[in-house]
Amino acid sequence: MNPTKKTTIVLFSGDYDKAMAAYIIANGAAAYDHEVTIFHTFWGLNTLRKDEMVKPGRKKGWLDRMFGRMMPRGADRMGLSRMNFAGMGPKMIKEVIRKHNAVPLPQLIEMAKEQDVKLVACTMTMDLLGLQKEELLEDIEYAGVAAYLGEAQDGNVNLFI
Amino acid sequence: MNPTKKTTIVLFSGDYDKAMAAYIIANGAAAYDHEVTIFHTFWGLNTLRKDEMVKPGRKKGWLDRMFGRMMPRGADRMGLSRMNFAGMGPKMIKEVIRKHNAVPLPQLIEMAKEQDVKLVACTMTMDLLGLQKEELLEDIEYAGVAAYLGEAQDGNVNLFI
Amino acid sequence: MNPTKKTTIVLFSGDYDKAMAAYIIANGAAAYDHEVTIFHTFWGLNTLRKDEMVKPGRKKGWLDRMFGRMMPRGADRMGLSRMNFAGMGPKMIKEVIRKHNAVPLPQLIEMAKEQDVKLVACTMTMDLLGLQKEELLEDIEYAGVAAYLGEAQDGNVNLFI
Repeated sequence: MNPTKKTTIVLFSGDYDKAMAAYIIANGAAAYDHEVTIFHTFWGLNTLRKDEMVKPGRKKGWLDRMFGRMMPRGADRMGLSRMNFAGMGPKMIKEVIRKHNAVPLPQLIEMAKEQDVKLVACTMTMDLLGLQKEELLEDIEYAGVAAYLGEAQDGNVNLFI
Repeated sequence: MNPTKKTTIVLFSGDYDKAMAAYIIANGAAAYDHEVTIFHTFWGLNTLRKDEMVKPGRKKGWLDRMFGRMMPRGADRMGLSRMNFAGMGPKMIKEVIRKHNAVPLPQLIEMAKEQDVKLVACTMTMDLLGLQKEELLEDIEYAGVAAYLGEAQDGNVNLFI
Repeated sequence: MNPTKKTTIVLFSGDYDKAMAAYIIANGAAAYDHEVTIFHTFWGLNTLRKDEMVKPGRKKGWLDRMFGRMMPRGADRMGLSRMNFAGMGPKMIKEVIRKHNAVPLPQLIEMAKEQDVKLVACTMTMDLLGLQKEELLEDIEYAGVAAYLGEAQDGNVNLFI
């Protein structure tokens, strides 16, 4: 009997295209019956932000408010790792995705949830960037580096994106 | 008896220096008798572009033509991930490579081919960026995320670059 | 009896935030009793630079001097992978780190040394960027891609950052 294969991805990047790659690999691995976890850390946390304004549970200091305002609110507002052209790049990529019947990032995230890909927000960097649970999507988990390593050390495919 | 070791690299980046790192690791692993595969996806596909203009097999729409024009045609025209200085950086790096008798990227790709490193172009992102087979190097393979995962799940070293 | 688990990280990036992520994962893995190695290559070598000016052992050519001057001297002077804002970003991140009682990069490196994380400088890229041993921190090791692969092929967690 084969043990279940495991895939873990650290999503550090806040780029639309890199997050797409992460979620395409994650969805592929889930379709292959891997147990899949995506750990969202640093700018990768923006993938999990809700797209509406959220009143934070605890009052934020000015630095946290500033980070909150400058970082993109959710997957659909993220920029590209290259050819961003002051925001034109993401529009082009989305047009290209539409034309080629490919799947845009917000739907890739939905697919991942439906396939039970575990979406984890890194609590240490949430704290650092001043992000609170209310600001992030529902149905995600919260953990730190120890939990990540616990999974990755038995992983077949471990990527840092 | 030891089974053959496997190394897989997802080359997502279109930066000259990151592609160098990918090919140096790949060539090293091949010299170590690993089975090595590089999956070129997104901007990493530019590494595999021919450096001459190619008349596409199928007519391209304007978005595909635009991507085709804006993306570097082949390994030798790619920029650096930092200190690019509007194109001066790559010239400096190439000068440095020459001075130190190191191997520039196009030759690293040749070496990889000679060592039977499998060079794979991701068909999904080829479609997305409007790249056609005629525009890419000869002797490469074409596959999607499923083929990648099939190899990576038995890989000893799996990297995302 | 379980064999010792191994974690290897290729630190290619010269960004403060990415280096933080690398060292946080490395320190976590060391606390988990993994054997941990960080291979610093390309811009990642800047993490290991001493912060004072160092008279090089061998005379440098102009290109090497130029690289030496343009690259940040040590972990504390590196920029961010995004929101760098001409150097304001790192100041903000460091202020945020201080406010949240998190650990800044130079201390993360100290912690790694205390936990016997093996810090390796890639000799090939040292040569390429004109960095000499005198310019790098004490108590580090020097090796090439073969040594990296020797460790990574038995690694449980292998990341490229």
